[in-house]
Amino acid sequence: MGNINSRKTIRKYTQKDISDTLLKQLLDEAEHTPTMGNLQLYSVIITRKTDMKAQLAPAHFSQPMVEGAPVVLTFCADFRRTTLWAINRKATPGYDNFLSFLNAATDTLLYCQTFCNLAEAKGLGTCFLGTTIYNPQAIIKILCLPQLVMPVATITLGWPDEQPALSDRLPLNSIIHQEVYNDYTPERINEFYTAKEQLEENKHFVEINNKETLAQVFTDIRYTKKDNEAMSLGLLEALKQQGFL
Amino acid sequence: MGNINSRKTIRKYTQKDISDTLLKQLLDEAEHTPTMGNLQLYSVIITRKTDMKAQLAPAHFSQPMVEGAPVVLTFCADFRRTTLWAINRKATPGYDNFLSFLNAATDTLLYCQTFCNLAEAKGLGTCFLGTTIYNPQAIIKILCLPQLVMPVATITLGWPDEQPALSDRLPLNSIIHQEVYNDYTPERINEFYTAKEQLEENKHFVEINNKETLAQVFTDIRYTKKDNEAMSLGLLEALKQQGFL
Repeated sequence: MGNINSRKTIRKYTQKDISDTLLKQLLDEAEHTPTMGNLQLYSVIITRKTDMKAQLAPAHFSQPMVEGAPVVLTFCADFRRTTLWAINRKATPGYDNFLSFLNAATDTLLYCQTFCNLAEAKGLGTCFLGTTIYNPQAIIKILCLPQLVMPVATITLGWPDEQPALSDRLPLNSIIHQEVYNDYTPERINEFYTAKEQLEENKHFVEINNKETLAQVFTDIRYTKKDNEAMSLGLLEALKQQGFL
Repeated sequence: MGNINSRKTIRKYTQKDISDTLLKQLLDEAEHTPTMGNLQLYSVIITRKTDMKAQLAPAHFSQPMVEGAPVVLTFCADFRRTTLWAINRKATPGYDNFLSFLNAATDTLLYCQTFCNLAEAKGLGTCFLGTTIYNPQAIIKILCLPQLVMPVATITLGWPDEQPALSDRLPLNSIIHQEVYNDYTPERINEFYTAKEQLEENKHFVEINNKETLAQVFTDIRYTKKDNEAMSLGLLEALKQQGFL
């Protein structure tokens, strides 16, 4: 992981495929990630077929990475395998509840991130698609996910065909708190966000969107209250459908 | 990350402290982890004080790592900082909903896992405490977490003072699926779980618990339906209290 400081999201990939051997090696090594009670509450759906990528793309707002990547991985919170194991072993499982969903989602996201760190250390490029939990029902249908399986993350994976600039990040002091939560005063907000707001790309972003502040681009266009509330309902509905609520 | 294949959870630490410089370097480097819209929806509470560890310990079922580690880190899903930024910039935030919680929890868990991978590459030992979401309300109170901040993961961190055996993991074929979900027949359950069930430590585990199968140790003792359902209610209550539901 010597390259973490130059890590960038990669959205464009070369035509070169990813061998099954390499993919499996990385997925296998990532299994050393910590997991609740060593139950490994996750499954990964590997998408390589062109028509399956075409089906998945609209669920990810048709972002071009989905069809452009040699491999798409959907990481699913999975209490089904453990539940079926229990049923087959004279045991009575009780994992059809919200805590169990969050336990499985936790296992899954930790596993996913170790996988990405390993893949990037091998020179692969990854893009994390947050859209997975915006349209879970479409993804559930396409990938035939049964009860107690819920998609929580999607990664597009390939050999990089672009060299994007490094993304800015907030100063460390803005995200750490000593002993107790240190709330954000207007002065601290100014201290932590001014550099980001002054970046040329962000000033341009505000201008082309006809907004007054960068924050308005996020609240009014990218992640709106109306969309968040509608998608919250869809997400809770999907959790019910999959048996976790 | 060359050492992923020998990675082990470490629960016992030497007396040696972790310098603030090293801790901050690792927390800073981990910021390169992908994050939704580059919003970095997380905060980390650093616990070093003995009395704060003593307060946190019962919330983690008094597991000895909490008081035994030089550093305890509580990783929190945080939409508060972004929300206060918006309010201070004439923008109207809409992140008091379930989707936003899961967005922030996702950012937080990915960040947490990169941090752990980096810390372990430096020779530090970590233990992931799943108990964080079992008793969120106690942790919220102790760490003074305000609205739109929710603890989702705790790590104890220190220099290893033990060399535990490598944990077994399921075979890769049990967690991957080609194109669509390949459901688990009784035959496949046998194929994937028999090796685990035959391990001496697991046979011993079944025996001392007076159970018939390993799965029963999980369903009847470690993670019971009754506990999961009670803790699901507490977790949903905490999400309401923090303004995410």
